[in-house]
Amino acid sequence: MKLRVKHLKTETGGPLVAIINEKDAEVLDLHAADRIKIFYNGQIETAVIDITESLIPKGFIGVYDEVLASLKLKNKDVVRIRLAKKPLSIDYIKKKLDGEHLTKKEIDQLVWDIVHNKLSQVELTFFVAGSYCNPNTLEETLLLTKAMVKEGDRLHIDSKIVIDKHSIGGIPGNRTTMILVPIMAAAGYVMPKTSSRAITSPAGTADTMEVLADVVFPLPKMKKIIKKAKGCIVWGGALRLAPADDKIISVEKPLMIDAESQLLASILAKKNSVSSSHVIIDIPIGPNTKITNTKKASHLKRKFLQIGTRLGMKIKVVLTDGRQPIGNGLGPALEARDVLKVLKQRPDRPLDLERKCITMAADFFKLIGRKNGRALAKQILSSGKAYEKMKEIIKLQGGNPNIKTEEIPLAPFEYDVIAQKSGRIRAIDNLLIAKLARIAGAPQTKGAGIYLYKHIGDTVRKGKRLFTVYAGSKSKIDYVKQVVDEMDIIDY
Amino acid sequence: MKLRVKHLKTETGGPLVAIINEKDAEVLDLHAADRIKIFYNGQIETAVIDITESLIPKGFIGVYDEVLASLKLKNKDVVRIRLAKKPLSIDYIKKKLDGEHLTKKEIDQLVWDIVHNKLSQVELTFFVAGSYCNPNTLEETLLLTKAMVKEGDRLHIDSKIVIDKHSIGGIPGNRTTMILVPIMAAAGYVMPKTSSRAITSPAGTADTMEVLADVVFPLPKMKKIIKKAKGCIVWGGALRLAPADDKIISVEKPLMIDAESQLLASILAKKNSVSSSHVIIDIPIGPNTKITNTKKASHLKRKFLQIGTRLGMKIKVVLTDGRQPIGNGLGPALEARDVLKVLKQRPDRPLDLERKCITMAADFFKLIGRKNGRALAKQILSSGKAYEKMKEIIKLQGGNPNIKTEEIPLAPFEYDVIAQKSGRIRAIDNLLIAKLARIAGAPQTKGAGIYLYKHIGDTVRKGKRLFTVYAGSKSKIDYVKQVVDEMDIIDY
Repeated sequence: MKLRVKHLKTETGGPLVAIINEKDAEVLDLHAADRIKIFYNGQIETAVIDITESLIPKGFIGVYDEVLASLKLKNKDVVRIRLAKKPLSIDYIKKKLDGEHLTKKEIDQLVWDIVHNKLSQVELTFFVAGSYCNPNTLEETLLLTKAMVKEGDRLHIDSKIVIDKHSIGGIPGNRTTMILVPIMAAAGYVMPKTSSRAITSPAGTADTMEVLADVVFPLPKMKKIIKKAKGCIVWGGALRLAPADDKIISVEKPLMIDAESQLLASILAKKNSVSSSHVIIDIPIGPNTKITNTKKASHLKRKFLQIGTRLGMKIKVVLTDGRQPIGNGLGPALEARDVLKVLKQRPDRPLDLERKCITMAADFFKLIGRKNGRALAKQILSSGKAYEKMKEIIKLQGGNPNIKTEEIPLAPFEYDVIAQKSGRIRAIDNLLIAKLARIAGAPQTKGAGIYLYKHIGDTVRKGKRLFTVYAGSKSKIDYVKQVVDEMDIIDY
Repeated sequence: MKLRVKHLKTETGGPLVAIINEKDAEVLDLHAADRIKIFYNGQIETAVIDITESLIPKGFIGVYDEVLASLKLKNKDVVRIRLAKKPLSIDYIKKKLDGEHLTKKEIDQLVWDIVHNKLSQVELTFFVAGSYCNPNTLEETLLLTKAMVKEGDRLHIDSKIVIDKHSIGGIPGNRTTMILVPIMAAAGYVMPKTSSRAITSPAGTADTMEVLADVVFPLPKMKKIIKKAKGCIVWGGALRLAPADDKIISVEKPLMIDAESQLLASILAKKNSVSSSHVIIDIPIGPNTKITNTKKASHLKRKFLQIGTRLGMKIKVVLTDGRQPIGNGLGPALEARDVLKVLKQRPDRPLDLERKCITMAADFFKLIGRKNGRALAKQILSSGKAYEKMKEIIKLQGGNPNIKTEEIPLAPFEYDVIAQKSGRIRAIDNLLIAKLARIAGAPQTKGAGIYLYKHIGDTVRKGKRLFTVYAGSKSKIDYVKQVVDEMDIIDY
């Protein structure tokens, strides 16, 4: 059947979808969720179909950006379609749901189909659910990791030691990467760090680094930066490292579930894609983090070590205190200020953030077999070598290396939250304080967020400030006030 | 935030979805798959959001038919939106995925959310997958059945005996309902039969009955027909009986999985919704049916009996021969001719179909405690009482009761498939022969389909016809010829 293209000018963000009129569907005996092959100019693409009564007229085929791009179609082009078979993966997904184990061939095909958008949202969800209910074996997880690496781009680095870190289920603040990369690079080690942007937090590492420099680079440019400075801090989302991962996360999000095997595979595949040899995994534990207790964390730790070994990586998993934000700033500009204060060794630097970074740097040195790591890390920091390295990286990434901490602009509207009584801080709710910083405008408004004056164990005096909120508009401050009144963010 | 409505003029067929521009999403910190509340004219509706770069401009909200109808919106109306919480069901779906059992309250809420389109496709898929991997207990299945009944419409019938039947995973032909309803109604029993249309077969009972009469009636009209004739044969899809079912099936389809508990619940909920007290479940067993062996069938049988008892229904499950089509015709018109031939007791009637119906009628009589059921069924059929009852039903459903069998039009293009050698029929592939009848145009073209001259065990002689294909166009016949050459439909 021949149909004329109607471009729908939007992305599905994943599955290849085409929409046809119900009259045309009837002729070919097509049903919603069936697949068609679309032929155009010697090219073939497969798409899942939706059927409409009136959005697309008879004789037309509605296509989204992805299909248009794949076949290099233009609006009003004429294509030919016919019924296509289901992808092979459907049978493997069913196997997984039935509790059977998958072979290398099957997992490779599944990851290929995911990366090439051959599966519908419903099908992909069944795969994630199957893997959640019937956990993958160690062997399957390893195969999944390798398949994810294979289907993405890779950064080849000619060095025996390539270090990397990952923090699971971030807590607010906690900008260790931006301090660890300069320390380790200053010590002479390669650390090709790719980071994410915030999803539910006030800032991701990529958002914070963006206050100081560019973070979007193609792989060859990233490689050049690393060659010169040994380290970089870029946005991983701009690269195609283990791309199956993002598609899997998109269906996991609504239920906030993490199929353990996919968590392991996606983290380790991204590390493996940039040639990492020595990796630290930070698992913060606290009531409002992804991993809420030591038992779960220890289980996950064992898995990381097992699979890491099989991939030829040396891995250290550290269980850290995740009960409260790390550092004083929450939001890109405020967190960038924290980072610079530590690197510049200013007296008003957040010591909790510095301590965590020194401990992790010491762990890195130990992992790569270097003695007196803690002293070395302290020396690199206090001597200003880490700050000099950071300036070099900022410059290579197109930023201003000489920016002064106070020159980083904060949002113009401020609101101080005052202690209503004297006491000692018992708890800070990570989720609520992150939410409040987001309501103030972080991370979209770089200068918005929260500056926290107190941490757990600190004493407060009635009438003194607990934290200051920065927002871009008066109306946001009003909303913040309302939320502060309703929620118990800090318990004291 | 206020947005102007842009009607997208299509149905999602399920979840309530609205699309907003990424710039507006940023302001409210909304992400794909988040939910919003839409306020209009004192009414509130919740919808899942999609985010677009360009399909919907800034300041607009794209809504599908379902949202438009729910809020009685018109194009260009202005609505207010804000972030909404996730439905409660999300937590219950997660419980199910984690292998925990659900309570009555939780199952009621889930079914309510499904029926009211509060769950996205991904969320609903997680529910189905969770129920598939971690099967429901008998208690949960019972609760699911009751919740499905509660959320749909009901047909109240003031009779102690209300009979009904259901065939699982239909085989081609097999139009027992259209013979059983007149037999049982002629015997004085109420049988308010709702049937489905074909999904993958050449005809459903509703498609076939539609050759002879109307099948789309609202519940009150259906009740009137039953009051007069004791029986009816209508399309269940036009009613709102246990409506959660169709939504669940829509996500099960791509993988062709059946979560057992949902199969049981959906069948029994539909029966319970029309007040059925005595039900026969027909499970055809064969290599190309849904239930392929006696072990699976016996397991399912036990479950039906257990849950039926708890619902206060008397149930008999019969395991029948599902190796081949029942009757000679495949396709609405050809199957309607088969039915009339049996009811009219013509010498050329399909005896396999008649035998199955008499056995099932005898089962019904036994189930309701009446003796000599087989003899009674035969007498009702041979005396012409069943045919008279069918004429009454056809007339009440707006058809021509005096239609002659040969007046039912067949599609004009014929193709005879001839035996290439002499032999005995060993097997007929249900799936392939159904596919061929659909390629010929069934069920959309009522007169299209296949007339089968032979069944398993029959002898064929070289050069004689195996079956005749009827199609609406020359090009369909050409395609049929090609498929016949490629496939081994009949083994002899």
